[in-house]
Amino acid sequence: MNIIILYPNDFTANDRVTLSDRRFHHIQQVHQAKLGDTLSIGLLNGKIGKGKVTEISNTSILLNTNFDQPPPLPLPITLIIALPRPKMLKRILQTCATLGVKKIIFLNSYRVEKSYWQTSLLTTEKINEQLILGLEQGKDTLLPEVILEKRFKPFVEDCLPSICKNTQAFVAHPSSSAACPHPVDQTTTLVIGPEGGFISYEIDKLNQAGCQSIHLGERILRTETAIPVLLAKLFSA
Amino acid sequence: MNIIILYPNDFTANDRVTLSDRRFHHIQQVHQAKLGDTLSIGLLNGKIGKGKVTEISNTSILLNTNFDQPPPLPLPITLIIALPRPKMLKRILQTCATLGVKKIIFLNSYRVEKSYWQTSLLTTEKINEQLILGLEQGKDTLLPEVILEKRFKPFVEDCLPSICKNTQAFVAHPSSSAACPHPVDQTTTLVIGPEGGFISYEIDKLNQAGCQSIHLGERILRTETAIPVLLAKLFSA
Repeated sequence: MNIIILYPNDFTANDRVTLSDRRFHHIQQVHQAKLGDTLSIGLLNGKIGKGKVTEISNTSILLNTNFDQPPPLPLPITLIIALPRPKMLKRILQTCATLGVKKIIFLNSYRVEKSYWQTSLLTTEKINEQLILGLEQGKDTLLPEVILEKRFKPFVEDCLPSICKNTQAFVAHPSSSAACPHPVDQTTTLVIGPEGGFISYEIDKLNQAGCQSIHLGERILRTETAIPVLLAKLFSA
Repeated sequence: MNIIILYPNDFTANDRVTLSDRRFHHIQQVHQAKLGDTLSIGLLNGKIGKGKVTEISNTSILLNTNFDQPPPLPLPITLIIALPRPKMLKRILQTCATLGVKKIIFLNSYRVEKSYWQTSLLTTEKINEQLILGLEQGKDTLLPEVILEKRFKPFVEDCLPSICKNTQAFVAHPSSSAACPHPVDQTTTLVIGPEGGFISYEIDKLNQAGCQSIHLGERILRTETAIPVLLAKLFSA
């Protein structure tokens, strides 16, 4: 937890919060904060700043807050990911939030197992839980938006072309001929396939919607590794 | 398993292997291979090629092998990582192997908990198990070398300078002033700290040994995310 994220209902006065939940336990056990210490804090979807410890007991901590800086700049990307298996989903949500992705669309695909859509991790509450963990790691406050698209064809035919419009749009596909371009820092749409990859029909559809196929070399990466690699190559920040 | 890695004792004749272990089960259940199919194969620390299914039963599979290509080029890097918690260690070993790192040194540091060195995952056998999983993902056959350095100061003072010599040497450190450079594709030494980062004394020692401090922007990344991001930025492959 490199930043403590605060919510409106944490405030007991204008500039004062009392924490007694997992954030309190983390501040107590990991940060081992003492009276007078200052901690990095951020207001959910707002500014970041410092919180000064003004009271601490066995059950709660009181911070005097001061927010004076904007959160880190978001990555200008819409990331479209074939829905991964539940075990990977958590990590992928955290990684995306840490790296500054603000719009994530989970898409169905031929090689996405139907059972993946049944996981309890896909409720807004559970998704936000993982995103918050990622924001806390990355010292960010802006909660990403997550959209679930359970039907490949209608999404790719009817919605994707307008998402791609005026962006550089790519689909990461191991056997394609073009290498991932070097940092361009433009508004980007990026599609990442499932384990085993998109099938040819899907790649054709994605290409038709405006996404250029790019590869990352001979090695095949797991989704959770491909995401940081692609974002690191596409953006210089 | 994007490649089936074979060992000398798998061979029942010059160009023929019989598999009945987890590789057989994977080929049967995930690849759903049938008689006459060809599968990507590689010889541990050797060439890659194709294996043709010539017999298949409920308990084993027989492949006719042909090795005709070199494995992907290694990344020219020595990666030195403060020993992570056991849960992360497995993933980090897999990720490094998948991305083509061939020399990994796990180093002690002030913020590495002593208990991390006690994990049963640090035996050669357990380490190689994870590395093989990573190679299978990345379609590579060259087993990385893993070295354990339990004492920070003697390693950094006596060994690190000669490792750094004639390489571009970096330590990833969030509060440093220099940004991670763009792809240079030179022989590189890269040091990555523990959760919570290296302490100032350690950074001074690493700088003195020849490692330049570099940062990855405002966001703080977990080791498992920092590794793919740093490798993607430092190497164009």
